[in-house]
Amino acid sequence: MNCATGACPVPDEPKGVIKLADGAGGREMHELIKEIGARLRTSGWQGSDDDAASFCVKEGRVFFTTDSYVVTPLFFPGGNIGKLAFCGTVNDLAVKGALPIGLSLSLVIEEGLPKDEFFKIIQTIGELSKKHKIPIVTGDTKVMDKGAVDKLVICTSGVGTGELIDSKVEEGDVIVVSGGIGEHGAALLAKRFELETELETDSKVMLEEVAAIQAYARHIKDITRGGLASVLCEIAEKKGVMLEVEEEAIPAKKEVKALCGMLGIDFMNLACEGRLVAICKPDFDISALKKLNPAAAIIGKVSKGSGVVVQTRLGKKMLHMPSGNIVPRIC
Amino acid sequence: MNCATGACPVPDEPKGVIKLADGAGGREMHELIKEIGARLRTSGWQGSDDDAASFCVKEGRVFFTTDSYVVTPLFFPGGNIGKLAFCGTVNDLAVKGALPIGLSLSLVIEEGLPKDEFFKIIQTIGELSKKHKIPIVTGDTKVMDKGAVDKLVICTSGVGTGELIDSKVEEGDVIVVSGGIGEHGAALLAKRFELETELETDSKVMLEEVAAIQAYARHIKDITRGGLASVLCEIAEKKGVMLEVEEEAIPAKKEVKALCGMLGIDFMNLACEGRLVAICKPDFDISALKKLNPAAAIIGKVSKGSGVVVQTRLGKKMLHMPSGNIVPRIC
Repeated sequence: MNCATGACPVPDEPKGVIKLADGAGGREMHELIKEIGARLRTSGWQGSDDDAASFCVKEGRVFFTTDSYVVTPLFFPGGNIGKLAFCGTVNDLAVKGALPIGLSLSLVIEEGLPKDEFFKIIQTIGELSKKHKIPIVTGDTKVMDKGAVDKLVICTSGVGTGELIDSKVEEGDVIVVSGGIGEHGAALLAKRFELETELETDSKVMLEEVAAIQAYARHIKDITRGGLASVLCEIAEKKGVMLEVEEEAIPAKKEVKALCGMLGIDFMNLACEGRLVAICKPDFDISALKKLNPAAAIIGKVSKGSGVVVQTRLGKKMLHMPSGNIVPRIC
Repeated sequence: MNCATGACPVPDEPKGVIKLADGAGGREMHELIKEIGARLRTSGWQGSDDDAASFCVKEGRVFFTTDSYVVTPLFFPGGNIGKLAFCGTVNDLAVKGALPIGLSLSLVIEEGLPKDEFFKIIQTIGELSKKHKIPIVTGDTKVMDKGAVDKLVICTSGVGTGELIDSKVEEGDVIVVSGGIGEHGAALLAKRFELETELETDSKVMLEEVAAIQAYARHIKDITRGGLASVLCEIAEKKGVMLEVEEEAIPAKKEVKALCGMLGIDFMNLACEGRLVAICKPDFDISALKKLNPAAAIIGKVSKGSGVVVQTRLGKKMLHMPSGNIVPRIC
């Protein structure tokens, strides 16, 4: 860290590498956990320095979610695995209508991981936690011997409270996407193929997006692995309706489409980490969502029937749940 | 499966191996998740088939915990990684005074893991979930390419409700252990060294043990990595007291002590997965705990001062937080 400016808000970057003893339950592990805790916002709950934390809630609905992150590489344009983990878990709660009140952070680390890389990731989680006022309230640290895991796996779970957004989807409802799709998957692919692009992960916390549509929303889902195609197929099946989508209305950056064309991938199958699909009442007003992201768009409507139909320039086609190994270790 | 008896309570064992596509977010992943769900108790919450589940609670204290399991081998005498994950997360809640109301199950699988092994582990979790009426309410499945993770990592988180057990520890309070220590660590070590012993993991759900001492307990902690030594040192430090322990009062099987002698390990450093330490009021009645496990014992008392003092045959010694790599990948 450059201290020439006089600003040193974070602890010194630790040196060395993670050792097996750092996960063995003894002195070294307790020291590592203290170093992790120093970088996180952990307040608000009782027992955050212990194996289980607790919090007093009013009568109401409690939400619970979990996700593991295995992305490679750990660092990529616009983010790192820590950003994915924090945002992904917050978003899983947000799209259900919950305000996250606490996250857990479980770290599975490969022996030999450089501490400076490790703590950069923890620092990212800590900054997001402070920015969004969502504390990390409990955690776990395991170290696996060299070769037994590829660098780092993060599992984040989250607890939230709120009112469930999930009602019957009706004919005439509109299908909304909160921004250009596929940027996370495309940025990862470009990095892996060492292509120089301007693309960055779309990974972000979507609490504001949900707030902008909550009054109209019947059902919201974040787009992750399997991309927009997977989410649309899932909604159509679960809700027992047909979704009619206009291909040309689907927002996607030119670079995303170009990369997909080059690699022979459908841009609708590419992962996002900061985009959602919502089924909203017909009178939905998109202006608040557009203020957050001008690319937000209504991409179609709900009809009677089943499946997902895409209107392309060449005619209609049925969209199927993607299969096979679309892009491995994308999140 | 042999159906000659007419009893076919579980689905056929799936054949083949886990593939990368099983974690890619498309059709194969949705099918794998259905097969997992068929083996688990998943009811009681809204949205258990989705990325976040929800449950209505009364005003009160909500507890939250997480743990990752990286044990090797996956199967060992008396259990497997699935049993550890279920019991460990339930116990982290139980020792705080919480009744678990739902667990999450996040699976990180190595490409190529035989499906029969994988589903045996899921089956174990399902059986425990049904027996203890604690549903698995949300989950995640990731597949890493061959060599990127050693077979299987499980991350379980848990949510519970109840009254916090955690009050001031006082001079004259007694130190209680719920059964013979170190059996989990010893069973794992024996298996790794291919020694033939009768030792089995002590992994178990400790809700009954907590219920048997709750009325007297000031503080309870499950013993895991780092063993009894680590837990005692942690309690003494957190509570600002001295713990005086009688070495001869500490329950441990002869085989555990013999194995430790052979390998030069202190039995107080060996991991447990179904034992707890409690600091109880001086009038503690151990009879209910002894009914659950005759080896349960009062091993010492709380005094003024700091640290942990062990009275041995040869005199008193200070116990220190273990350090170094005690036994890797034990849980």
